[in-house]
Amino acid sequence: KELELAPKDDFDRLKMEDLLKQRFFYDQAFAIYGGINGLYDFGPMGCAMKANLLQAWRKHFVLEEQMLEVCTAMLTPEPVLRASGHVERFQDYMVKDLKTGDCYRADHLIEATFEKMLDDKKTADETKEAIRALLPTIDGMSKDDMGRTLREYNMKSPITGNDLTDPIDFNLMFATSIGPTGQLKGFLRPETAQGIFVNFKRLLEFNQGKLPFAGAQIGDSFRNEISPRSGLIRVREFTMAEIEHFCDPTDKSHAKFPKVADILMTLYSGCNQMDGKPPEKVTIGEAVKSKLVANETLGYFMARIQLFLIKVGVDPSKLRFRQHLSNEMAHYACDCWDAELKTSYGWIECVGCADRSCYDLTQHTKSTGVKLVAEKPLPAPRTLDIVECVPQKGPLGKSFRQNAKAITEHLSKLSSEEVNSVEQALNETGSVNVDVNGSSFAITKDMVQVKRYQKTVHVEEFVPSVIEPSFGIGRVMYSIFEHNFKVREGDEQRTYLALPPVISPFKCSVLPLSQNADFVPLVQKLSAALTDMDISHKVDNSSGSIGRRYARTDQIAIPYGITVDFDSLKEPNTATLRERDSMKQVRAPVSELPEIIKSLADGKRTWEEVLNNYPIFEQQEASK
Amino acid sequence: KELELAPKDDFDRLKMEDLLKQRFFYDQAFAIYGGINGLYDFGPMGCAMKANLLQAWRKHFVLEEQMLEVCTAMLTPEPVLRASGHVERFQDYMVKDLKTGDCYRADHLIEATFEKMLDDKKTADETKEAIRALLPTIDGMSKDDMGRTLREYNMKSPITGNDLTDPIDFNLMFATSIGPTGQLKGFLRPETAQGIFVNFKRLLEFNQGKLPFAGAQIGDSFRNEISPRSGLIRVREFTMAEIEHFCDPTDKSHAKFPKVADILMTLYSGCNQMDGKPPEKVTIGEAVKSKLVANETLGYFMARIQLFLIKVGVDPSKLRFRQHLSNEMAHYACDCWDAELKTSYGWIECVGCADRSCYDLTQHTKSTGVKLVAEKPLPAPRTLDIVECVPQKGPLGKSFRQNAKAITEHLSKLSSEEVNSVEQALNETGSVNVDVNGSSFAITKDMVQVKRYQKTVHVEEFVPSVIEPSFGIGRVMYSIFEHNFKVREGDEQRTYLALPPVISPFKCSVLPLSQNADFVPLVQKLSAALTDMDISHKVDNSSGSIGRRYARTDQIAIPYGITVDFDSLKEPNTATLRERDSMKQVRAPVSELPEIIKSLADGKRTWEEVLNNYPIFEQQEASK
Repeated sequence: KELELAPKDDFDRLKMEDLLKQRFFYDQAFAIYGGINGLYDFGPMGCAMKANLLQAWRKHFVLEEQMLEVCTAMLTPEPVLRASGHVERFQDYMVKDLKTGDCYRADHLIEATFEKMLDDKKTADETKEAIRALLPTIDGMSKDDMGRTLREYNMKSPITGNDLTDPIDFNLMFATSIGPTGQLKGFLRPETAQGIFVNFKRLLEFNQGKLPFAGAQIGDSFRNEISPRSGLIRVREFTMAEIEHFCDPTDKSHAKFPKVADILMTLYSGCNQMDGKPPEKVTIGEAVKSKLVANETLGYFMARIQLFLIKVGVDPSKLRFRQHLSNEMAHYACDCWDAELKTSYGWIECVGCADRSCYDLTQHTKSTGVKLVAEKPLPAPRTLDIVECVPQKGPLGKSFRQNAKAITEHLSKLSSEEVNSVEQALNETGSVNVDVNGSSFAITKDMVQVKRYQKTVHVEEFVPSVIEPSFGIGRVMYSIFEHNFKVREGDEQRTYLALPPVISPFKCSVLPLSQNADFVPLVQKLSAALTDMDISHKVDNSSGSIGRRYARTDQIAIPYGITVDFDSLKEPNTATLRERDSMKQVRAPVSELPEIIKSLADGKRTWEEVLNNYPIFEQQEASK
Repeated sequence: KELELAPKDDFDRLKMEDLLKQRFFYDQAFAIYGGINGLYDFGPMGCAMKANLLQAWRKHFVLEEQMLEVCTAMLTPEPVLRASGHVERFQDYMVKDLKTGDCYRADHLIEATFEKMLDDKKTADETKEAIRALLPTIDGMSKDDMGRTLREYNMKSPITGNDLTDPIDFNLMFATSIGPTGQLKGFLRPETAQGIFVNFKRLLEFNQGKLPFAGAQIGDSFRNEISPRSGLIRVREFTMAEIEHFCDPTDKSHAKFPKVADILMTLYSGCNQMDGKPPEKVTIGEAVKSKLVANETLGYFMARIQLFLIKVGVDPSKLRFRQHLSNEMAHYACDCWDAELKTSYGWIECVGCADRSCYDLTQHTKSTGVKLVAEKPLPAPRTLDIVECVPQKGPLGKSFRQNAKAITEHLSKLSSEEVNSVEQALNETGSVNVDVNGSSFAITKDMVQVKRYQKTVHVEEFVPSVIEPSFGIGRVMYSIFEHNFKVREGDEQRTYLALPPVISPFKCSVLPLSQNADFVPLVQKLSAALTDMDISHKVDNSSGSIGRRYARTDQIAIPYGITVDFDSLKEPNTATLRERDSMKQVRAPVSELPEIIKSLADGKRTWEEVLNNYPIFEQQEASK
């Protein structure tokens, strides 16, 4: 379950949201028009953080594994999403308030009603027991199950108390029409994955025919949620980062698995969930060995996902991998582990890691007739018996004229078994009927020739399996905000964000001690030197006290602060460097500062090392 | 005109498209489903190049000017786009083939028919003359003009020769429905700009109330083109990079203008276009001085656009700025210069640079009632005479009960003039009728009190003007492809892309001379050192000859190639470094290579300098 019963946490979400709104990390979209649920705009701080997060993702996954990154269309014609199963099955059930027409997601409504009943003293004990048994099954309920539950517990519209409709299918895709005629139906893609699958042939070719390889895509997707809630967690438009790793279904080993085998992970298996047991800590090596995690490739990506999440600021104690139960698995998946992050909304699915097997490629082949396969050398050459039907164009053309072409195509595509049965019929009766484009045509012996021969093949074709790590970037960002929102000890008002430098919107601030004009040349010189090294930074020469300006830069997560004071103006120029989380400061030559910041931000030097190499500086905040 | 009569260029577009397709820079989307016109997918090479181009844009504009970058929703509710004018006016005219229903853009069809008639020997001379006079006016034609022209020249469907409908309005936005009720109509945004305008208040606040500042956004937009053609030039889904620079309408000077004043630009003024004169070369400083370009801010951005385009590989001789004629100006613009790039399709509008004045902010204020204004200090405090209507809640409540609140609100919002006339009426007749929510209510003297007093104000509010540079990223990319597509002298088959390193998908290649296992450790060490410095590179250890592998890396625009040969294995390790365009090589220590590549790619060192500092290397291609 994605949004578990929210644990009563002492986390002050409102206080954090205040900060995020006030410093414009993100906020509701179209607010001056009253706002639209489920749509958010990222402001300068959120946008820079997101760009840094995506760049870190690209380095960690795409560059490290030499993945083939693509950027494909969001508008998607219906047949593609029909093949992928989304037209038919990408839906939620909703119920409507019979009087107002307000819509609710049926599962959310049932869950919320049950929670309320459990909290209600008037609810009978046996009813509570029944509800407790039903709660974990809600995700797997069919439409009928939900309808029955709604009626059995006499559920009403939560706001008006009015009666509700039975559950109704509601497809979550945004529909539109492509082109001017209105005849080409399309959807906004609900995931970026399909854009990789439909390009499989091109990517395989780009990779010179070799497997395994991974396609990757960072892009936006859309889901028309019935009643979005929970801020950035459930939205209608969102950025995903997806990887489709194609491999031989008979060999899901991974060459780099030994590099991650010893990583300790918190795994919440399907069995433990069913048995009411807690998650377990185990190395990914053991988990694959014991078959708890299906194969090395799945395990490799799970470990890499964990490394990435911790690198970008996720609290390791609030991270677990939960295995999907069979009743909640997506229609394409054969095994799936979600990286879940704990927030004040409960444990939230932020990254899916699914083995989609060969579902998608097979489906697109079925729909298009285009073979989406790879080849591998056979251990030894194999001799095949080929049976082929060779249509005879002359007689076919004479008898069937404008239909001859379609019939010829049909005949030349017959399978060996079909050719055999056609041949048998012709031998027995001299004629056989074939159905082409809805009409039946009588084929006679002179119209086809059956060829039999042997062929030696050195390779075999197969449909690759797909392992898919899929990141919901907004959810990851939201969790990082919660995991890094802090309040200074002893000062409830001084809130800050302890984001790791790799994703901080700015890497450092440059603060002249006052608005004294003497500081300007040195500040400009330093700013130019930082720019030259591509260090994003913020010069804050406003009039507040230095302590107040530190507090402000802490709020936008700037990890390092350089302050230029009167001592800085003496040769050799020095300035103070402050670290956000410890608030400790050193004094260092101005000429060395860009290099120090760069190495700190890149993780090539620690703050401890800086503290050990430069003189500690104290008490500047009062020294003006 | 955007797609001018294509100059008969000797550029071999098919040959270039072959290369781009084959090395998967980009290709038609959903090709295995038959493809969708106007939708393209970027493969690994195009995607990496695009990411580099956007990163360069971010550095050149956002970081350099400390712009406030945002990332806003693509789904947009109808009222926003009604306010911006897009619902009413963002449209093309189309005509339909009466029998087949095929749709054509009316202006394109007229233009194409005219071109055909001009080429036709049978067309009478006076007709040709009339056509030549009409051609430049097509962009400015109204629907009626087009209908008249179609009939006058008896135009038919270009494919079937069938009769055509009269021109029909066709809105270019993709419509969809947001939420489950189907009652909230929305569109996919046709430009990213509106996302910045609706966040104006938040951005101004983020900037601590100060003007000028610029918002910026990189994002995707959508236009349901009637009949997309010309590859990446006219597509239905595309990436834009837009800047909205907000400034005081009475002061459009720019502090950094002197830095660009001497830049020479090719300007094609509206007057010269009307008079049939060619574009002129002039510095932007002179152009602003002579009022050819309206103001410094517009001029500053035009110069910065030029610098950017040249930096990322545009041929300066194929760049000009063309002023919009008044009949083709977008509904929001008051002056506009397009950066046009010359391609085999003619001169293409790739970057618009418009002065949108205060159109957008004013429109959104009208629609929402939210004041989108900035404040500036008055030269001297000003004393204002305030006239205020103070509703008396007691009497109003007694008389109007549930309507009292709305009436109170209405009364307290009256302008000074309105208050005066209400007061006059009350004094004359003792009662006055006000209309609220469609009903009329009789107000009597006891219900309102009129207050008059003086107030000293130190600031005045104003609606900022907006200067908007707007980049079509796909069009810029396409032009860069054309400007950098080359064929090796003397070998028609050896095509390559001479992209500048800053946007090349990879910065260098690493090629072991052969598949000999002895090379592996050194290649791995070098690759790790390159990764450590964030240099994207491609190791090609396939079996082709070194010359063949160079040719392959040239095709994907890799600017530098490192080859590890047998001499490399001797201490101190050295390797050869080859530059793509000159094909010259030097020999350098392996330990120095990452730093050399990095400085070359960052533009901090030139290839000439490398040639002067390291021994020239010859003839490796034959030395295996």
